[in-house]
Amino acid sequence: MTTHHFSPAHYHTTIGWHEPVLHIGDGDTVITTTVDARGADATDKPITPRGNPQTGPFYIDGAEPGDTLAIHFDKIVPNRRYGWTRKMVAANVVDPDYTPELPWNTENNGLAQWRIDNDAGTATLEAADTSLNGFTLPLNPMLGCFGVGPKGGQAISCATSAEHGGNMDYNGYVTGTTAYFPVFAPGARFHLGDGHALQGDGEIVGTGIEISMDVQFTVRLLKGKQSFWPRGENADYIFTVGNARPLDQCVQHATTEMLRWLMTDYGFDKIGAHTFLGQCVEYDLGNIFDPAYTMVCKVKKSLL
Amino acid sequence: MTTHHFSPAHYHTTIGWHEPVLHIGDGDTVITTTVDARGADATDKPITPRGNPQTGPFYIDGAEPGDTLAIHFDKIVPNRRYGWTRKMVAANVVDPDYTPELPWNTENNGLAQWRIDNDAGTATLEAADTSLNGFTLPLNPMLGCFGVGPKGGQAISCATSAEHGGNMDYNGYVTGTTAYFPVFAPGARFHLGDGHALQGDGEIVGTGIEISMDVQFTVRLLKGKQSFWPRGENADYIFTVGNARPLDQCVQHATTEMLRWLMTDYGFDKIGAHTFLGQCVEYDLGNIFDPAYTMVCKVKKSLL
Amino acid sequence: MTTHHFSPAHYHTTIGWHEPVLHIGDGDTVITTTVDARGADATDKPITPRGNPQTGPFYIDGAEPGDTLAIHFDKIVPNRRYGWTRKMVAANVVDPDYTPELPWNTENNGLAQWRIDNDAGTATLEAADTSLNGFTLPLNPMLGCFGVGPKGGQAISCATSAEHGGNMDYNGYVTGTTAYFPVFAPGARFHLGDGHALQGDGEIVGTGIEISMDVQFTVRLLKGKQSFWPRGENADYIFTVGNARPLDQCVQHATTEMLRWLMTDYGFDKIGAHTFLGQCVEYDLGNIFDPAYTMVCKVKKSLL
Amino acid sequence: MTTHHFSPAHYHTTIGWHEPVLHIGDGDTVITTTVDARGADATDKPITPRGNPQTGPFYIDGAEPGDTLAIHFDKIVPNRRYGWTRKMVAANVVDPDYTPELPWNTENNGLAQWRIDNDAGTATLEAADTSLNGFTLPLNPMLGCFGVGPKGGQAISCATSAEHGGNMDYNGYVTGTTAYFPVFAPGARFHLGDGHALQGDGEIVGTGIEISMDVQFTVRLLKGKQSFWPRGENADYIFTVGNARPLDQCVQHATTEMLRWLMTDYGFDKIGAHTFLGQCVEYDLGNIFDPAYTMVCKVKKSLL
Repeated sequence: MTTHHFSPAHYHTTIGWHEPVLHIGDGDTVITTTVDARGADATDKPITPRGNPQTGPFYIDGAEPGDTLAIHFDKIVPNRRYGWTRKMVAANVVDPDYTPELPWNTENNGLAQWRIDNDAGTATLEAADTSLNGFTLPLNPMLGCFGVGPKGGQAISCATSAEHGGNMDYNGYVTGTTAYFPVFAPGARFHLGDGHALQGDGEIVGTGIEISMDVQFTVRLLKGKQSFWPRGENADYIFTVGNARPLDQCVQHATTEMLRWLMTDYGFDKIGAHTFLGQCVEYDLGNIFDPAYTMVCKVKKSLL
Repeated sequence: MTTHHFSPAHYHTTIGWHEPVLHIGDGDTVITTTVDARGADATDKPITPRGNPQTGPFYIDGAEPGDTLAIHFDKIVPNRRYGWTRKMVAANVVDPDYTPELPWNTENNGLAQWRIDNDAGTATLEAADTSLNGFTLPLNPMLGCFGVGPKGGQAISCATSAEHGGNMDYNGYVTGTTAYFPVFAPGARFHLGDGHALQGDGEIVGTGIEISMDVQFTVRLLKGKQSFWPRGENADYIFTVGNARPLDQCVQHATTEMLRWLMTDYGFDKIGAHTFLGQCVEYDLGNIFDPAYTMVCKVKKSLL
Repeated sequence: MTTHHFSPAHYHTTIGWHEPVLHIGDGDTVITTTVDARGADATDKPITPRGNPQTGPFYIDGAEPGDTLAIHFDKIVPNRRYGWTRKMVAANVVDPDYTPELPWNTENNGLAQWRIDNDAGTATLEAADTSLNGFTLPLNPMLGCFGVGPKGGQAISCATSAEHGGNMDYNGYVTGTTAYFPVFAPGARFHLGDGHALQGDGEIVGTGIEISMDVQFTVRLLKGKQSFWPRGENADYIFTVGNARPLDQCVQHATTEMLRWLMTDYGFDKIGAHTFLGQCVEYDLGNIFDPAYTMVCKVKKSLL
Repeated sequence: MTTHHFSPAHYHTTIGWHEPVLHIGDGDTVITTTVDARGADATDKPITPRGNPQTGPFYIDGAEPGDTLAIHFDKIVPNRRYGWTRKMVAANVVDPDYTPELPWNTENNGLAQWRIDNDAGTATLEAADTSLNGFTLPLNPMLGCFGVGPKGGQAISCATSAEHGGNMDYNGYVTGTTAYFPVFAPGARFHLGDGHALQGDGEIVGTGIEISMDVQFTVRLLKGKQSFWPRGENADYIFTVGNARPLDQCVQHATTEMLRWLMTDYGFDKIGAHTFLGQCVEYDLGNIFDPAYTMVCKVKKSLL
């Protein structure tokens, strides 16, 4: 049960079976930082190439294919005063014939700046080119891209996601949430990055409020526990995550994984699992911007 | 501002430019009933062929193409003691290779019975073939299929949905909600049916708890107000609805309609509408079972 | 075996259970005309509103749900000197981020004119705004939209397609081809229209070379022969047609229908049908423009 | 213009920036072999783990990001007497409700054997469990999976495909075809494997006739020639390839790439390229089985 303080010296823009930066044990806690999607750190200076650069990977001693890795996010907190978003809903999120109406060319290369106030818990838009200037939202800090070394020795771009996690851009991955991943690589090799001070469903402008983060997480290794897709848990829900295109396939992956989970861990017989899920399931849209989209299948713990 | 009591004598399994059953005026209220998806009424007897049979259509005097019709659901209440659901998640909602694991053949032709208690506000499963038997959920009565005469004189099956509404199977259409429709037909020709005592997101077993209903609704005619897809409003949210396949296209329709609405009715400039929606939007999954799926794009009124 | 000469006096822009314009018998031949997609006839004058207006419906005596209707196209020939196409690949057919590069606003409301020479068998582009002006292609006259009264009394827009046929825009429906349809309505109610002097795969600009036609067809009624989706046959192939979105689902419908057909009519056992189709199947892209897309599943007759 | 004889000693089941097995120059020819999808060689013995194991990568001297690599397949010939296919159309290729009708469990773990006769140019089915036994088809030897090191240092599973090529399973990649790839990695790093003695469109049973191959190819390096997706050329056609899901997106990628190509290399102005493609384009279905599907956009050279 060691607590590790880790300062990253380099970053990866793929999630792969990379050389571990640190070996940690079951139950250990890591306190570290992440840069933003374009590689800028707490001082808002770019220190590494853009593309959701990842801190890590962390090697979890004893983790092997067939296990499940649990990551509890103890803390995700923005560590600088400014984040940024895009100002245009992505072309793939509107009707194709509506695309000429999009604001293709806006000031500041299409980026808006948001002022972050951790004490007040707010983000405030600073954009001179819209009357929305000054608009304020409550913070909901989350990580957009994180995961484990993928199947078969792959190294997968941090632009996208799959069974190993990756760029899911789901605004439910906040402080207090536990994320579960199937282990594919020896040591699991956990990577993390791409913090958002907050984000709407779907990440439809292609960004949340992109920002560098202070992160603390605690790992647990579930030996011999099999899973196929990312799962998660918070105070109120258990959930499963499907990453693919189109959204229909995301729903298929996530729903199949939830059916398995209900039957193996929650005591449902098959007809019960199906009948229950039919009337109790909830879905969230993670992202509809990245190469792979993300849908989340949720069940209230109070119903289990 | 008349209140009409209407007892249906026949039903339609398409939504079309059918002969109106009643002419009503702007501001009028209608008190009526709907049969369940298989045509059974408050006595649980089938009185008309299955296929989400519709009460109506109601002709709204003065409604013309280019207007928007507002339907406020004053009351949606189950009017009998039993509803039913399917017991298998639909094959299109799970991974194709997982389909052999589905409970294809179950007792009672795949249907489960639920006992409805309006006083307690609960639905209780009565299914001998699962240990879930006796499971109880809170009621959330809604209408699955309703809408207006579609574009160009079409008559569209109540199995599916489009710009005119139809079988959207969205569990947000409950008492207290206002549904808006673009008017395509003279008199709008509002139809309604397919009540669910409650339903999970996505209607993934192909049913909510199917039941007949007592319904009261009040119409308003928004002359000259143009809309393109169904919209809605409740105490907390405004929302837009996209009906299509795949889900990606539902999101496109609903998001485009929301962008339009924010700019025409809520004072957003273009960059503001896009920047705002990017960080504030929420999406619900209506259905992922019917020929056309449904996604809902929502914005909290408190942010407007 | 009567030959009917039929001159249309009105047209439909939905395919439905409309009042028949003529009763015909099994084996009869009809000689008639169709207007173009915008309702212009052989004189190039608009005589009816646009939207793929249909000639018909023709009532086939004795046709009932559960039968299959065979339409042999004896002749499809352009009956005027000029047709037209759009000049921009549709926004839904290119990468969303590429849409600003499309030629959104071109001369003549985005339309190009093509001169048709039936004797030479050619179409020649007359468009002053491109150096392609004068480009010539061989004619391949086809019908884009035709079909039978759809399921359950629906009236479906001629913009789209489904099990009943409709706006499939498949360039394989030419002279010499037999089209088969499941019968849903009493008398089948065959409609036809939307001629193209020729068309690329996918109808990616949203049009073929749109033109009015002289058409001759001969019907056969296959009593008690069940089918589920449109089928077809020419000298070299049998084929099945799936109409839906996305294209993936078109492939599912068409492939399922072909498996059924191989087993019921061509003597394949189940393993044989699957093994055969795996190595012998061919697919054509009908359209990727209309609300429902179209894919065609083909098998060479020489292999059967 | 050297000819290299290369005997592979190991294989990769990802396409990545792997250590090159050989450096070759612009204009060089390589004569080598590939194992089948399950890692069996010319003696039909498994010598490496399954998963479309790749021969290579070959480092093309001077190749850099921003160039295009041309691979001309001089020869693709099966080098053993037996290949194999699956005997069931994949569950994702049929209607979800039809999946219980699939032959899920068949003899020999679902595999059928085919006898290959290079002299006769035929493949003959040897499968005792179907009356199709003895069925013979003409050979059309092709490679299913090959490509170059992908963007950003990724290593992508040979199960799937993307901009770098990969498991496209397109039956047009035969002897005499030239395949073009955008270069992402220093030296391009060309990999090849997954030979099929022949294959139906779509690879709908998840296999062609899987077999080991003798392959000869010749490389050309097009310095400074930019491309974004795989392209190709044979005696009759130029073509572009889109790899994604759903098929709709494959069509978008391939069509966009073809529009670019027509305008940069074939002298089309924008309106000309669009108008031409609309009436002249053809599409092939590569695969509808792998994680990423493949569609091919083709234009006849005689029209250019």
